[in-house]
Amino acid sequence: MPPFGLLHMRAWASLFGQLLRPRRAVFIREVAEAVLTSQLKPHQEKSHFVIKTPKGTRDLSPQQMVVREKILDMVIGCFKRHGAKRIDTPAFELKETLTEKYGEDSGLIYDLKDQGGELLSLRYDLTVPFARYLAMNKVKKMKRYHVGKVWRRESPTIVQGRYREFCQCDFDIAGQFDPMIPDAECLKIMCEILSGLELGDFIIKVNDRRILDGMFAVCGVPESKFHAICSSIDKLDKTSWKDVRHEMVVKKGLAPEVADRIGDYVQCHGGVSLIEQMFQDPRLCQNKQAREGLGDLKLLFEYLTLFGIAEKISFDLSLARGLDYYTGVIYEAVLLQTPAQAEESSNVGSVAAGGRYDGLVGMFDPKGYKVPCVGLSIGVERIFSIVEQRMKTFGQKIRTTETQVFVATPQKNFLHERLKLIAELWDAGIKAELLYKNNPKLLTQLHYCEDMGIPLVVIIGEQEMKEGIIKLRLVASREEVAIKRENLVAEIQKRLSES
Amino acid sequence: MPPFGLLHMRAWASLFGQLLRPRRAVFIREVAEAVLTSQLKPHQEKSHFVIKTPKGTRDLSPQQMVVREKILDMVIGCFKRHGAKRIDTPAFELKETLTEKYGEDSGLIYDLKDQGGELLSLRYDLTVPFARYLAMNKVKKMKRYHVGKVWRRESPTIVQGRYREFCQCDFDIAGQFDPMIPDAECLKIMCEILSGLELGDFIIKVNDRRILDGMFAVCGVPESKFHAICSSIDKLDKTSWKDVRHEMVVKKGLAPEVADRIGDYVQCHGGVSLIEQMFQDPRLCQNKQAREGLGDLKLLFEYLTLFGIAEKISFDLSLARGLDYYTGVIYEAVLLQTPAQAEESSNVGSVAAGGRYDGLVGMFDPKGYKVPCVGLSIGVERIFSIVEQRMKTFGQKIRTTETQVFVATPQKNFLHERLKLIAELWDAGIKAELLYKNNPKLLTQLHYCEDMGIPLVVIIGEQEMKEGIIKLRLVASREEVAIKRENLVAEIQKRLSES
Repeated sequence: MPPFGLLHMRAWASLFGQLLRPRRAVFIREVAEAVLTSQLKPHQEKSHFVIKTPKGTRDLSPQQMVVREKILDMVIGCFKRHGAKRIDTPAFELKETLTEKYGEDSGLIYDLKDQGGELLSLRYDLTVPFARYLAMNKVKKMKRYHVGKVWRRESPTIVQGRYREFCQCDFDIAGQFDPMIPDAECLKIMCEILSGLELGDFIIKVNDRRILDGMFAVCGVPESKFHAICSSIDKLDKTSWKDVRHEMVVKKGLAPEVADRIGDYVQCHGGVSLIEQMFQDPRLCQNKQAREGLGDLKLLFEYLTLFGIAEKISFDLSLARGLDYYTGVIYEAVLLQTPAQAEESSNVGSVAAGGRYDGLVGMFDPKGYKVPCVGLSIGVERIFSIVEQRMKTFGQKIRTTETQVFVATPQKNFLHERLKLIAELWDAGIKAELLYKNNPKLLTQLHYCEDMGIPLVVIIGEQEMKEGIIKLRLVASREEVAIKRENLVAEIQKRLSES
Repeated sequence: MPPFGLLHMRAWASLFGQLLRPRRAVFIREVAEAVLTSQLKPHQEKSHFVIKTPKGTRDLSPQQMVVREKILDMVIGCFKRHGAKRIDTPAFELKETLTEKYGEDSGLIYDLKDQGGELLSLRYDLTVPFARYLAMNKVKKMKRYHVGKVWRRESPTIVQGRYREFCQCDFDIAGQFDPMIPDAECLKIMCEILSGLELGDFIIKVNDRRILDGMFAVCGVPESKFHAICSSIDKLDKTSWKDVRHEMVVKKGLAPEVADRIGDYVQCHGGVSLIEQMFQDPRLCQNKQAREGLGDLKLLFEYLTLFGIAEKISFDLSLARGLDYYTGVIYEAVLLQTPAQAEESSNVGSVAAGGRYDGLVGMFDPKGYKVPCVGLSIGVERIFSIVEQRMKTFGQKIRTTETQVFVATPQKNFLHERLKLIAELWDAGIKAELLYKNNPKLLTQLHYCEDMGIPLVVIIGEQEMKEGIIKLRLVASREEVAIKRENLVAEIQKRLSES
């Protein structure tokens, strides 16, 4: 697998082009529909139990896996390009490891049944396990990536690509460094991945928890309500200001005039000039935290300009991020849809997000020793939905195997010869298949190759064996060439390396 | 990633050679010990909660991940060589999906807490989810592989490489085919993987559930006790015949003379000649099932001979396999240890196993429609323990990143130039790093490269910038060459492609 640089990423489309054959997209759609139907319409019979995957989860078919793996390969390729190491952690953690990390979302954690022994919960993200890993192993500095499933008991709205089990790809930089250099790299990585996947135009919203806290303070929000109000603000990408204001005032007991002051701020978004403008804001600038946040954002934009990605970034005062553990810069990438796209598909929401969390590792350390961290998470599931949708639209067919050679015969009672030959191919590292029948028809065998996109067929028969030759059929052109039996493996390897 | 054929597999050792640098193996050991210690010795303090992974689980460090991925790449490469498609299924299933599939082992299933909604359990293997997938999607024919974690609440004996969370790699062939052809391919795959991983000599024990059932019948075991007695026999690889006999007679109420008759059979193991011998056994041959099983094994050995692996296979009447769902041929690969190895490490047990399960899909189909299946599972965890142990013995150090180029400067206040330059490298697909410091010392930067095994360093300074050149340092030889600034990317790519 070659490394995917931005230039190499251009090859992405043609790479897909090789995998996809413009045939019926029917199969993919059928499988997808079968999965959806079985999830949405439980069996009517009560006698026999229902065969389905749990609510909010799904199987991935071979077609889906090919797309998934291509996306993961590209994401992981980018993480490696930036020098990250990979780790893995268990699917479940001690329940108390996850306690008090997720604010209002804590209710969405899956707990395991108490079967004696420790109380356990399925991991909710890859960030808290990473912080636990750092504290447990007393690691002070690390750039790591982690690809794995996480579980959240959300009301699943499957059409939008939201599931209760989903895959996350996280990249994080832990350690005490000079300000904003790792943070800028995280944004660069998000840009590389989103450009590389060719999902269309996108923008990354950036804000800072300290600016939010400063804003809350100068607007008159009591400090005890900062987290709760932050959670409300976080809903602004899905909910109108009117509804968010209502929640803040009615449910969370905020004074209406305080809410309105917040309302003025959260409408602001722009580039570096907005940072300057906020520095001029007499109210906000009284606040030390806000000033620090604004200063860091200014430095961040300096670095983003050097990375050539400043025009992709928008300073957005409405960005809040729901999770409790963020302490500094936060960001979220959203795809910009054309009006036509926006009409046919519902809002896909953010496809990548992250931020700085300098206090999380300290929550696990017995002495409260802090390890500053900043990172990002790629929402593979949503990206996957988009790519899958696009493939359906274009009616592309995917090769789900990599078989290079098929071993066929027109002859009856030739199983032994086929088995001997295919073992020779396997032992030479050639990807090969045959039909598991004593006497398959030649036409059935050739159809299988055309169906599966297998490029080469080796055909053995009695006459050829006597002559010490073997026939090699090129499936695409249906051309057949005779080869000396002893040269077969070399000839196949030569043809495969040329194609 | 090139396909690993048996010939290519020879390159395995040298591939590892490239990854490993013969330095201190201290770090790997330290991490491993830290993990073990934290798992085995819970914190003494009661006030602060314990930072650990759940009992029987572990994190994988970057070093461990590199080894793990190399093993997985090889296993997956073999599965692809045999034309398999990949699928994925959720980590948990409906509890009833897993009910009555695992016999005595059912108590080891992890259940999720009832938080409202469906009752769920973590998957116990990848076989039952595969059967559920086939039945749910009405797939009648499929060759698939699946790599994923499974969970079992076993008493963890970590030193032996047994965990409560572990990774399985499964390959299965579903469909109605002519006898023993897919079964023989499964054994071929096990041989290719175990040879390719160079774990030392191994043997694959083979038996057939029908021969076992026939043997039980002619020995006088009541049919209601077949499964229970089978479970006892399954323990023979870890327990003496005396203890197994005791369990059968005392716990499971078998007549002592029946147990002794079984005892005579389960001592038998050998090659094709043993099959012939059993065909001559007057008692066993009365039994139709046993005759069928023996006939199929004879055919299987015919195919294994054509595949060139017959000498790796041992017909072993003591092989039983614990799981309920097997219906035909069963097999289990064990490593043959030299006496020295056997002394220093405990028994690693089976490293791969599988068999035929023709009834499992039918258990999920409302009309009981059967899809015959045969497959195998690679015990990656145990293989991983062996490889890790070997690496410790040889004191090998592993590169955990793939970084190709480091961007350094001897100059103060040169961060902007470094950031601009590294973005150029990333955009060209080059794996590059820098230190996240405004003014790092040159020596610190060069030490980092030597420590991390980064082969190239780009050094930028004011003087060179004025001259339009840049210095490229080759870390291994410490040689430095001047390159025209505009040729930098091309020159780096040339050098990387040559190395």
